[in-house]
Amino acid sequence: MASYSEQKEDLLLRLRRIEGQVRGIQRMIEQDKYCVDVLVQISAVRSALDSVGLILLDQHTRGCVARALRDEGEQAETAIAELTDVMKRFIK
Amino acid sequence: MASYSEQKEDLLLRLRRIEGQVRGIQRMIEQDKYCVDVLVQISAVRSALDSVGLILLDQHTRGCVARALRDEGEQAETAIAELTDVMKRFIK
Amino acid sequence: MASYSEQKEDLLLRLRRIEGQVRGIQRMIEQDKYCVDVLVQISAVRSALDSVGLILLDQHTRGCVARALRDEGEQAETAIAELTDVMKRFIK
Amino acid sequence: MASYSEQKEDLLLRLRRIEGQVRGIQRMIEQDKYCVDVLVQISAVRSALDSVGLILLDQHTRGCVARALRDEGEQAETAIAELTDVMKRFIK
Repeated sequence: MASYSEQKEDLLLRLRRIEGQVRGIQRMIEQDKYCVDVLVQISAVRSALDSVGLILLDQHTRGCVARALRDEGEQAETAIAELTDVMKRFIK
Repeated sequence: MASYSEQKEDLLLRLRRIEGQVRGIQRMIEQDKYCVDVLVQISAVRSALDSVGLILLDQHTRGCVARALRDEGEQAETAIAELTDVMKRFIK
Repeated sequence: MASYSEQKEDLLLRLRRIEGQVRGIQRMIEQDKYCVDVLVQISAVRSALDSVGLILLDQHTRGCVARALRDEGEQAETAIAELTDVMKRFIK
Repeated sequence: MASYSEQKEDLLLRLRRIEGQVRGIQRMIEQDKYCVDVLVQISAVRSALDSVGLILLDQHTRGCVARALRDEGEQAETAIAELTDVMKRFIK
């Protein structure tokens, strides 16, 4: 069971909506819509993706990281190194 | 005709790939994949979206903004204000 | 004369404030302040820097880029390539 | 003692360098340097600040968050909510 199992339905709903938005952007481009309108939609998808990322980061910290830290030992180190690495990907 | 008409096929290809990646993330969540692996995929989609945004920004500047600036007048002001506004959405 | 010459005073004021904030963060660290409070200050400096960046991008487009586009020719191409490149640095 | 006490010297060194870079940007603006060169410097300071942020986030997770999670109870919840909140500030 993943750390996000309680948020699973919410996450899937958000991702299906994001998938729909990405298809909408394809249609905008097929129909030669104005660049700025397309860019506004892209930035909206980006924010929606970031929200999904933040929910996962939050659940991951509460679940996997918390568990690893309680056990201490080597797993704790791995869990923190992974968390820092994944935050770096989002912040960079 | 939109400023990005020459990149249309490339943009659509990228967006279809992004759509596929978003569906892939849904599957990962349905299958309870490890949070960090899901997060890595989300950051990959984010980068892919940013690349699409940058192509559009580039084409928009070369096309619509350049045209508006050559005509000068009111349209030039509108084009620049719009460009700054859309860059703000990506930078924020 | 740079494109931002009319905003020069405003830009310098903002940068002096940013410099003060960075010194403030040094003091917080010297005094072992709580990590989260330090992080909040760092994100504030980051936003302040982004605002300076956006003012410069806006002025640069209105000034240098507009001038290069009106002249057309090779300079226009260089100006747009530079603008895209610098936006990439902020978005990535 | 803060979670980052072992990194204190490194963090202060980085922040002093950032302070110097911010002063350098002020000089560039006073001397009407080319906008794009100023923007490149601003994006460099931004990256340097993000590195400081990531070191602090990493140390904070290893120190304060780990401690709170081991104690469990109310403090654990507060620590995670704070961590998510501060990550949001950097990602948004």
